Amino acid sequence: MSLAGLMFKLPGALDYQLQRDSGLTHFEYLVLAGLSESPDRSRRMSDLAGFANGSLSRLSHVVKRLERRSFVVRRPAEDDGRITVATLTDAGYAFLVDAAPGHVRTVREYVIDALTPEQLAQLKVIADQILQRVDPGKPCSE
Amino acid sequence: MSLAGLMFKLPGALDYQLQRDSGLTHFEYLVLAGLSESPDRSRRMSDLAGFANGSLSRLSHVVKRLERRSFVVRRPAEDDGRITVATLTDAGYAFLVDAAPGHVRTVREYVIDALTPEQLAQLKVIADQILQRVDPGKPCSE
Repeated sequence: MSLAGLMFKLPGALDYQLQRDSGLTHFEYLVLAGLSESPDRSRRMSDLAGFANGSLSRLSHVVKRLERRSFVVRRPAEDDGRITVATLTDAGYAFLVDAAPGHVRTVREYVIDALTPEQLAQLKVIADQILQRVDPGKPCSE
Repeated sequence: MSLAGLMFKLPGALDYQLQRDSGLTHFEYLVLAGLSESPDRSRRMSDLAGFANGSLSRLSHVVKRLERRSFVVRRPAEDDGRITVATLTDAGYAFLVDAAPGHVRTVREYVIDALTPEQLAQLKVIADQILQRVDPGKPCSE
């Protein structure tokens, strides 16, 4: 089935380019990008998991790895010590700025340029309808 | 982006059901299914990698694991000892027959039932066009 091919090969191709050029997985890239777009480059771990489309346990694992590379720091939220907040460091931001153009170029080459504007719109509706079944609720708190 | 969500969450959801109900990853399921549909339930490893949308090294790793569970055996091809052929065992076939209805039900619930027949046709065209970019050639030999 073509969808199965898409599900396996596209993530593999995106991972391949990011790994080769930046030493990042696609998931790690999404985590850094999600933080870079947040106020104070900081986000609750639970929000970040939703943004990056992963479970909290997967995210914890990945953030630990990004912390060892000095790209991210974690600390308890000021108003609630039970909540953990992740922050992108200056080093992490600089690394992301370096990795972004190659990744954007790859997505453009594999997805945007492969489809007509009408198909891109169709794909968005299709993906949203499937996602609504797969993941009906978004987590609101940790 | 919705496509990123789809790429991360749909495989995760399919894996989750298969792991929970059958102790298989989606990739392992595709390997067993690919063998079950082949003549003599056998296929060259290189063909099987193409069918299951994975690299040969990933496939080797997974087939080794399926071999330990007695679902698959590997042997050199009769006409060319440099080529490895994988065969689904009776135990592997029985296991697949058991796992299939739950997996088919899940794909139906998440994908088929979420879309109109027109959208399913659109998705097939879209996936094919992206795949043609990601993976322009199919491997012909090991």
